[in-house]
Amino acid sequence: MTVPLSDAAKALLDEPEFACMATIEPDGQPQLSVVWIGREGDEVVVSTIKGRRKFTNMLRDPRVTVLIFPKDRPYSYLEIRGTATMTEDGGPELIDRFAREYRGTERYTGDDGTDHVRVVVRITPTRVVTRD
Amino acid sequence: MTVPLSDAAKALLDEPEFACMATIEPDGQPQLSVVWIGREGDEVVVSTIKGRRKFTNMLRDPRVTVLIFPKDRPYSYLEIRGTATMTEDGGPELIDRFAREYRGTERYTGDDGTDHVRVVVRITPTRVVTRD
Repeated sequence: MTVPLSDAAKALLDEPEFACMATIEPDGQPQLSVVWIGREGDEVVVSTIKGRRKFTNMLRDPRVTVLIFPKDRPYSYLEIRGTATMTEDGGPELIDRFAREYRGTERYTGDDGTDHVRVVVRITPTRVVTRD
Repeated sequence: MTVPLSDAAKALLDEPEFACMATIEPDGQPQLSVVWIGREGDEVVVSTIKGRRKFTNMLRDPRVTVLIFPKDRPYSYLEIRGTATMTEDGGPELIDRFAREYRGTERYTGDDGTDHVRVVVRITPTRVVTRD
């Protein structure tokens, strides 16, 4: 069941805080990585690259969990469980948006000269937990 | 198969950095929380409380994954997958050690007046990934 994001969850997602994202390995063990994270309405957005481990994991099992704890308030955290869908539409635009928010640069240059295909991961929350 | 920790992994585990820890929910979805983390030789140690969600998850499936990214170097990270064992032996001593390392206080007072049973979670690494 889809659940709405609370105001506290939205505020934290709107800050340029890094998140820890978990996908599910073929053997069931969680795979973790550090990601830039944002929001589109009540959905969570993350960027990845076609073929990356988290991409192949989400293709097989779209259930993901993300955790954010602010650097200056590590005892407050936000855990969101949800279901991911992926699309190449808007992939470059999203990573450029993150580069502006997290690095203050006009666009993301980390993919230049590569054949990376940028993917938008859109997470529909099914469970949201905040701890203050 | 057990794998040894690299010097870089040991150095990061020995800093008072917060970690993101994933356990496996009954339905297979990752459960994430923020934890204090440390090391005993080539094993990773974390503290929890008997009955907490991560405790019951690890009782059922001892496979866990932890991720550390330093606050001042978020693009460097350490991911450790492993198998957890839990014991009450040394539980209070470990949380006091973490209170000294993370808070600079002689002992942990968060459990005072509660009937919390502190548990040592000892993680034997089966896979260690560092990114600089």
